[in-house]
Amino acid sequence: MMAHRTHRIMVIGFGTVGQGFYELFNAKRRALGLEGSRITEIVDMRFGYTNMTDESHVREYLGNVDRTISSSDVVERIKASDADIVCEFTWVNYRDAEPAFSYMKAALESGKHVITTNKGPIALRYRELMHIASENGRKVRFKGTVMAGTPSFNILDLLPGARPVRVRGILNGTTNYILTRMSEGLSYSDALKEAQSRGYAEADPTNDVDGFDAAAKAAIISSVFGWDHPMDRIRVEGIRNITAEEAASGTKLLVYADRDEAWVRPQVLDDGDVLRHVKGVMNAIEIETDTLGKIYSMGPGAGKIETAQAALTDLVSISRSE
Amino acid sequence: MMAHRTHRIMVIGFGTVGQGFYELFNAKRRALGLEGSRITEIVDMRFGYTNMTDESHVREYLGNVDRTISSSDVVERIKASDADIVCEFTWVNYRDAEPAFSYMKAALESGKHVITTNKGPIALRYRELMHIASENGRKVRFKGTVMAGTPSFNILDLLPGARPVRVRGILNGTTNYILTRMSEGLSYSDALKEAQSRGYAEADPTNDVDGFDAAAKAAIISSVFGWDHPMDRIRVEGIRNITAEEAASGTKLLVYADRDEAWVRPQVLDDGDVLRHVKGVMNAIEIETDTLGKIYSMGPGAGKIETAQAALTDLVSISRSE
Repeated sequence: MMAHRTHRIMVIGFGTVGQGFYELFNAKRRALGLEGSRITEIVDMRFGYTNMTDESHVREYLGNVDRTISSSDVVERIKASDADIVCEFTWVNYRDAEPAFSYMKAALESGKHVITTNKGPIALRYRELMHIASENGRKVRFKGTVMAGTPSFNILDLLPGARPVRVRGILNGTTNYILTRMSEGLSYSDALKEAQSRGYAEADPTNDVDGFDAAAKAAIISSVFGWDHPMDRIRVEGIRNITAEEAASGTKLLVYADRDEAWVRPQVLDDGDVLRHVKGVMNAIEIETDTLGKIYSMGPGAGKIETAQAALTDLVSISRSE
Repeated sequence: MMAHRTHRIMVIGFGTVGQGFYELFNAKRRALGLEGSRITEIVDMRFGYTNMTDESHVREYLGNVDRTISSSDVVERIKASDADIVCEFTWVNYRDAEPAFSYMKAALESGKHVITTNKGPIALRYRELMHIASENGRKVRFKGTVMAGTPSFNILDLLPGARPVRVRGILNGTTNYILTRMSEGLSYSDALKEAQSRGYAEADPTNDVDGFDAAAKAAIISSVFGWDHPMDRIRVEGIRNITAEEAASGTKLLVYADRDEAWVRPQVLDDGDVLRHVKGVMNAIEIETDTLGKIYSMGPGAGKIETAQAALTDLVSISRSE
């Protein structure tokens, strides 16, 4: 096991992913050689701020819904913090990526590395964010924005020298679940209702069914691979008009990206295509490289511990690079 | 790009993989920050020894089939070499892993790291080899033994903290090609002949069709994951008796391993199983972990540049860890 530095970690946003990270980090830090590292502060607009982060205090903290604070107070807490890593787990906003963007900016400018699972700032304001990070000599890691902890764009870390040529993917579990259930005979609206009742789709399903979530992932992958496709220039078509027959013939909501273009749209995949056989909420990515041709990674694209694994991967990556 | 040391690399075995590595390393070393590193020596029992490794000399070297040398001469060349990394690309031998094992031992004992794509020494003599490596403070890397350069057991490098629970895989491309062609109507013997004519199967197909190659991979994965299943204790059943009907109903040559057992045998996979849809020479691995559940990696499991990518991955991994 490689030697690690000792880290003081501030968690911003203590919903499902934040709590998952708290549990996973504490369960695994000894095995990772991070026994000296601690989650030292937690802040969430609903529960306020705390620096008492042992289990019993955290349970109490989650009951204190009367201590809500504003996003500008959160920014002040970040600036004042003596943490060296900020983990940002707040909600996604595809309009201007706020308040997550301001949180990350405050963290970087006060000398902290940033780990996030939030697609907004990475899909919409990647260059701006990387510029701030580089000006301050800090890192931004965001594995959890594409396929949760399942290897996705970071699989290239295992392929030094390989150059990505093109990407296809099934990167939105909600729509893949709906299409899978439709291929088994359900109507679109019944499949959507079922996805909502199982917690896969939100009450307002727009971001998923209209393809915006998938487009954000196309933008993120493009940035990582050095292709310039900002989210607002990615052509997007969702699944609202897909029929049960189309679903049964192997229609999937496909994400595509190469150097020249990026798009999201329903596409019929033929039976010999491995991606056609990705069922339910599972995610999958096909990356074509110059040395290996097409390789695939598949697995969960969401979930409490599954997404926390991504943040843990980012944490160890930052720790080892110091 | 991280800073790298400068390496002097000795290549043992200059067949398809050795030549692929020579080409790939020279094409990619600048991009990898390894411009100061060189392949300084090449040795092959058929072509003899050379330390003139520029392209024109290597072309000449490959014509010199009258300079054959013995395996004990190869061992002497390894001991006398001033390389710091030995890349071993000789043939597989499931009886005693020789002469590859002696080459690796000589390399480690003379202070060199070892990279190999040879399954024999890792499947049969893992503990012995790791003991020698540890005694000499050197590393042995062997990504290419399972799924060539396609991420396989090393995908856990991207999942710090995750614990592997069980593995299933389609890890032999030759038998998967034969079964795929049988499912399309060919007889076993016609499918085998076709695989041989396309270079997927050897003249003596025993290692593939009787499952020994797959069993070697089960043993290697088990060692990496800390499960103790030496190759000679793995139950193996091959595909010689599979009928066209069984192939058409989704029979695959499956590799299985967990803490308690490891086996290789034909198994019918149902339609909802992603592994059923892995066609032709493609390889696939399913790894179940405590944090992510089941994740999958798929891609080529053989090939000149595809296997050379594995050795390049190992090389960069060793270089970064120093």
